[in-house]
Amino acid sequence: MGKRMVVVGGVAGGASAAAKAKRENPELEVVVYEKSPHVSYGACGLPYVLSGEIPSLTKLIARTPEAFRKQGVLVHTRHEVVEIDPESRTLTVFDHGEGRTFQDRYDHLVLATGARPQIPPIPGTEQEGVYTLRTLEDGERLLQALEGAKRAAILGAGYIGLEVAEAFRKRGLEVTLLEAKDRPLPHWDEEVGGLLKEELERHGVEVWTGVKVEAFRGMGRVEAVETSEGVVPADLVLLATGIRPNTGLAQAMGVALGPTGAIATDERMRTNLEGVYAAGDVAESFHRVLKRPYWLPLGDVANKHGRTAGSVIAGKEARFGGVVGTAIFKAFGLAVATTGLPLERALKEGYRAKKVFIQSQDGAHYYPGSAPLWVELVYEEGTGRLLGGAVVAHGHGALRIDTLAALLHREGTLEDLLALDLAYAPPYSPVWDPLLIAAQQAR
Amino acid sequence: MGKRMVVVGGVAGGASAAAKAKRENPELEVVVYEKSPHVSYGACGLPYVLSGEIPSLTKLIARTPEAFRKQGVLVHTRHEVVEIDPESRTLTVFDHGEGRTFQDRYDHLVLATGARPQIPPIPGTEQEGVYTLRTLEDGERLLQALEGAKRAAILGAGYIGLEVAEAFRKRGLEVTLLEAKDRPLPHWDEEVGGLLKEELERHGVEVWTGVKVEAFRGMGRVEAVETSEGVVPADLVLLATGIRPNTGLAQAMGVALGPTGAIATDERMRTNLEGVYAAGDVAESFHRVLKRPYWLPLGDVANKHGRTAGSVIAGKEARFGGVVGTAIFKAFGLAVATTGLPLERALKEGYRAKKVFIQSQDGAHYYPGSAPLWVELVYEEGTGRLLGGAVVAHGHGALRIDTLAALLHREGTLEDLLALDLAYAPPYSPVWDPLLIAAQQAR
Repeated sequence: MGKRMVVVGGVAGGASAAAKAKRENPELEVVVYEKSPHVSYGACGLPYVLSGEIPSLTKLIARTPEAFRKQGVLVHTRHEVVEIDPESRTLTVFDHGEGRTFQDRYDHLVLATGARPQIPPIPGTEQEGVYTLRTLEDGERLLQALEGAKRAAILGAGYIGLEVAEAFRKRGLEVTLLEAKDRPLPHWDEEVGGLLKEELERHGVEVWTGVKVEAFRGMGRVEAVETSEGVVPADLVLLATGIRPNTGLAQAMGVALGPTGAIATDERMRTNLEGVYAAGDVAESFHRVLKRPYWLPLGDVANKHGRTAGSVIAGKEARFGGVVGTAIFKAFGLAVATTGLPLERALKEGYRAKKVFIQSQDGAHYYPGSAPLWVELVYEEGTGRLLGGAVVAHGHGALRIDTLAALLHREGTLEDLLALDLAYAPPYSPVWDPLLIAAQQAR
Repeated sequence: MGKRMVVVGGVAGGASAAAKAKRENPELEVVVYEKSPHVSYGACGLPYVLSGEIPSLTKLIARTPEAFRKQGVLVHTRHEVVEIDPESRTLTVFDHGEGRTFQDRYDHLVLATGARPQIPPIPGTEQEGVYTLRTLEDGERLLQALEGAKRAAILGAGYIGLEVAEAFRKRGLEVTLLEAKDRPLPHWDEEVGGLLKEELERHGVEVWTGVKVEAFRGMGRVEAVETSEGVVPADLVLLATGIRPNTGLAQAMGVALGPTGAIATDERMRTNLEGVYAAGDVAESFHRVLKRPYWLPLGDVANKHGRTAGSVIAGKEARFGGVVGTAIFKAFGLAVATTGLPLERALKEGYRAKKVFIQSQDGAHYYPGSAPLWVELVYEEGTGRLLGGAVVAHGHGALRIDTLAALLHREGTLEDLLALDLAYAPPYSPVWDPLLIAAQQAR
């Protein structure tokens, strides 16, 4: 009989780990416990269901429990793992459907418990009309709430807040975006935030920055948001002020967390406990620029974690390559992509860092329809070592960020970038690629 | 008084060299001789003027002779350099405007004489109605010929032939594309050619492959093309069967050519003769995969050559980083990008090469409007070293080729590619980037 692999959490990292392990080693018994009713879905697609662009939440599901079953992976939804004993390698599971508790055992365990929204300590968040967006069930609740809603307030101008602002506008709502820092996307440098603010306002989003939210007014149902800058009437509020890893179960069983507060793993996704792996938003990654653990809770990273853990458990050689912090998102007409460190962060980390920020185009100057495109490069003075960068474009041209990410991966320099043979044709690039223009200016 | 820099040819490489040298060292006397009436234009944009998308040829001009003059660079158009004596560092120049010949001298010389169409040895090419497309003047002639033209035949399904096929269709012509090899883009592997053939036919281009053109029929004005597969009526013929470097002047003065037949240079764009540089389509580049000289006559390479030569002449440290053979072009709805070696070529070069070719999408499976995207990877068996690849997409998503190009630059492997932290969001990529999907399949 094969060994038994138990996966706790089946959304991205967990689903990947289970599928990969079973595929690589069919002898394995693979069981997934997921406390929600859904597994294997693309949570990153939730804003596009809210906007109406994707007609139904079920479109986001990559693989149903039935599909897993056909592959030989047993998936139990609405099953919450409540305790794990690493000594005896046993789990206590609560079945929300049947209301019963039972025990299971594992040879290999994957912790893929994900992350949860951070609820700000502001009076009134318990009221109806105040939502978060993380799971498919959150999406269902918000979709219902959108019926009849007219005025929305969004707290937090990070990825989720920005994507949902667009979705709400597409649904015809009045939207006020409330950000405590002085710009949208505050973890990145100000030029990108400035472009975002313009784009949001061009599409009718009220952007309030540097604002402190003091309370949610209402009598059990939210009516307005009280802030340091005035009152925002709202019948719908989204809290998008960050997330935290769900590490409770891991900590209780003695799994060590890393400096970021997420689970520490090695490049095979192993934790400090024998036979116990972690994958997805609950786990750290190694950051190849910072050279230390980093928490990058994104869907593609989760999938890679899971695939790596699954391969290793199946007895294959596999290592997760780490991250450099690459991300991209859409805000109305803009594609905003970043990688590595923004200047502010690089300086805080002690680098003698500088940046350039240039405006170019996504096609030749004479090509009709060429749209503006911006590039930021962050680099170390003297050595020219690249530390980070951003590309803002009107579509897939922002994927130039991947070229920067490839350079960051190996500690590339401005000179390395300038030496690259990049693709040129009038519909797709100026004769000097915007990355090269930026590097020339930096040099 | 400053040293005198003379540039022979002012389109891309020459114009870049002149502008860069003067900017870096204003003491230099910089003179450009260009035998045509135009300098500093984007010849890559010619197809889009023919199609009518760009309203006029003058839009392609980046910098007029007057603009150069204001910068302190003296540009003489319709001036042909007919002889150069490297001993005395003198040039003989023929002024086509005045019909006179005169002498000039140089301290630094840049040969940027470009390339010319290769005319196939087929009877009847001398007739009216038979054209090539290389210069702005070629563009003028073709634009005039398009008035009243109904049926076009294009010889050669390389970049130019394919781009012009689209332009002619947009002008409402019937178009027959005649290719001697068995597929469009025959220098690349067959899958890409197959996609191109479908796309061309979907847009009404007749594609004849494996066809031998025997004669151009007509009484001084072309009427039809006789081929091994039948007769193609045509009142307009474009010869797009390749180009050759204009090395006559260089050879006559003793400048050494390289193995490709273009001028040999070092990474500072110096030729074998003291004080003599070469830049643009007349010059070779070092190919970083093949590790030997390679001829890549493309606009972006020409600009880099010129900029490097100009910097070096101005006394600055500059090196051209070489090429890996990256190119992109548009064929109707497809963006076709390639880099490095196709499998066929890699095998001929003696590599134990293999390839994968996958179909994916340019967005998440659930994202509305996600379009098909294809990736080919060519790699060395055993080591996994990347040798080349292609990305075919419906727009800027094909710029993923740049990420491959960055890896080729440093002899990256499949494992290196798999370790990259690439950008993911539903509008721009599946959760597994198509490059990663291809690399997984290859591994």
